[in-house]
Amino acid sequence: MKLQITKENLIKALGAVSRVVGNRSTLPVLANVLLHVKSNKLFFSATNLEIGISYVSGVKAEEEGRLTVPAKLFLEYISTLPEGVISLESVKNNLKITTSKNESTINGISADEFPSIPTISKGIEVVLDANEFKKALSQVVLVASYDDSRPVLGGVYIYQEEDDLMIVATDSYRLAEKSIKPIRIEDKSQELKFIIPSRSAQEIIKSIDDETKEVKILLDDSQAVFTIGSVEIVSRLIDGKFPDYRQLIPSNSETVIRVNGKSLLSITKTASLFARESGGSVNISADPKTNLLKIASTTSQVGVSSSETKAEINGEEINISLNSRYILDALSVISSQEVVLNITGKVTPCLIKPDDGSYLHLIMPLRS
Amino acid sequence: MKLQITKENLIKALGAVSRVVGNRSTLPVLANVLLHVKSNKLFFSATNLEIGISYVSGVKAEEEGRLTVPAKLFLEYISTLPEGVISLESVKNNLKITTSKNESTINGISADEFPSIPTISKGIEVVLDANEFKKALSQVVLVASYDDSRPVLGGVYIYQEEDDLMIVATDSYRLAEKSIKPIRIEDKSQELKFIIPSRSAQEIIKSIDDETKEVKILLDDSQAVFTIGSVEIVSRLIDGKFPDYRQLIPSNSETVIRVNGKSLLSITKTASLFARESGGSVNISADPKTNLLKIASTTSQVGVSSSETKAEINGEEINISLNSRYILDALSVISSQEVVLNITGKVTPCLIKPDDGSYLHLIMPLRS
Repeated sequence: MKLQITKENLIKALGAVSRVVGNRSTLPVLANVLLHVKSNKLFFSATNLEIGISYVSGVKAEEEGRLTVPAKLFLEYISTLPEGVISLESVKNNLKITTSKNESTINGISADEFPSIPTISKGIEVVLDANEFKKALSQVVLVASYDDSRPVLGGVYIYQEEDDLMIVATDSYRLAEKSIKPIRIEDKSQELKFIIPSRSAQEIIKSIDDETKEVKILLDDSQAVFTIGSVEIVSRLIDGKFPDYRQLIPSNSETVIRVNGKSLLSITKTASLFARESGGSVNISADPKTNLLKIASTTSQVGVSSSETKAEINGEEINISLNSRYILDALSVISSQEVVLNITGKVTPCLIKPDDGSYLHLIMPLRS
Repeated sequence: MKLQITKENLIKALGAVSRVVGNRSTLPVLANVLLHVKSNKLFFSATNLEIGISYVSGVKAEEEGRLTVPAKLFLEYISTLPEGVISLESVKNNLKITTSKNESTINGISADEFPSIPTISKGIEVVLDANEFKKALSQVVLVASYDDSRPVLGGVYIYQEEDDLMIVATDSYRLAEKSIKPIRIEDKSQELKFIIPSRSAQEIIKSIDDETKEVKILLDDSQAVFTIGSVEIVSRLIDGKFPDYRQLIPSNSETVIRVNGKSLLSITKTASLFARESGGSVNISADPKTNLLKIASTTSQVGVSSSETKAEINGEEINISLNSRYILDALSVISSQEVVLNITGKVTPCLIKPDDGSYLHLIMPLRS
């Protein structure tokens, strides 16, 4: 291969694919990026065997060919070069990089050793608004489980319900659900439901920038391809049945609290400092007579803390224990000025919602 | 004790002293800040036994007294509170903190257990321009040794030479020296020379902000007190004789190179990427006939790299090996547009200087 490309385009491509490169120690070629020149296009690919990312860039190619080089070194090296045109040329399995003032050769590995990234020729096609999808994934992926014992909980569950696409995750202590309206679902005859690994969801979030308009998803039984501008992410799907979570969502509640999101965030942070040595547990009480929401924590070694804020409280007086880190996580993805808490006794899940209602976040109380 | 203080002032004071607090596991009270209220002043003190920092703040005090509380928790807790006035009150050995919406008690430790920070009643007094001193310390402390086998190399050596104050550090592989003009030295009859631990130098650097005009140093045989605005840093001095480093500085050189600092930084960074697996070693060559300065590196596993830049080269053609990390360190503290390299053969130290000449940085070549 032999071609010319600007530093700017090369950095953009390597930045997009190099996040997923694997650890050098497992299989050396997984730490490499595959460069493939064909018809004045340069295809960049990287994979950690769970996720594959590809990027295509227009170039001036004198010679076609394929080669792999260490992704991180390549990106760092290009970053130190001055702006302008860079020549890339394969010399056996090595990559020669030339500018007017710099010349280097990075040792590579034959492209034949690079694992092939799966493709999907036929499947259901779904088109989504890029920013809505990004926001929805960001709002749910944070509650996916890190525990490998139940693989389905380590993913984001996406399924169709009438005209909506539901996006859900849970680690069994908390649950987040967001509904969005798809732009288009091609084959409505098939039931649309699949689970993507949370790592893939995070890559999709990172790959969507402000300029991305749409995300196209192509699905078969075991793989999904997400097309995001010049980036293509291929992810395996998690096999298994997502729990029937809807039964966990309480349909009505004894106490409804409307409170300013920033005020709730502030008093939760304050209390959480004293809750570190008790696993994050804080005590929440709300009194409809005073309209005061109070968060308290006690640790024998550290001390005690109690903070309150004004709120609109309707229904029963309550007093429950929650993990303060879970409340902080929920508030970190709710951007509305006011949030609504639905609480029913000490054992029913507590619901946190923005005031518009398309998102809900559910937290199991702690025993107190 | 019982007093009122604004959040802003409390944050400023705790921020200034809490950096030096020790690890809770060694001696619990060293993780605490000492609060001491006397005559409408609140004195904050923290120490790790090597360095002590104090800060004084004006307050409205209803009751005098002393108490210690965990510094980091106290600072984090205050940071979460809304702006405004905060009441502090001791309840036995605990600190009760109250605002209109928050109430908490942090468990403390009796002030009697807090180690006393040494004071100096009589000694030499030196006054320096704060920003000159900060810059000088920043330019030399980075070469102080982390190896404890020769304690004097783990410090910054400060001594008087005629009208100048010389500030020096070395780890025996490299050396940095900066001269500054003191504003005042009180007792000129005594020889002024002392070594402060590099950790203390770093604290002094952090404590000097843009508003600080002067730094006052008061010295006796074993301690130095640095007064920096409202902050007072007490540091032990390192006992021992600093090596006679002047003999290492070559008085003339075979090759003199003048080069743009940013260009040298850029090509050194480029080459250093390929030098990671060879301990940072890069090869520098300069040819007075072409006026090209070239930096190259080779690692069998990674590849080869060579970059060049225009320079003004006078004297002999040279070719030496240096540690690229040392060159990058030197360039990180030289702000002049042009830098001057003085090189004499493969075993004489290489000198890097800004073009104004009040600072010099010396690097021992590697065997090549």
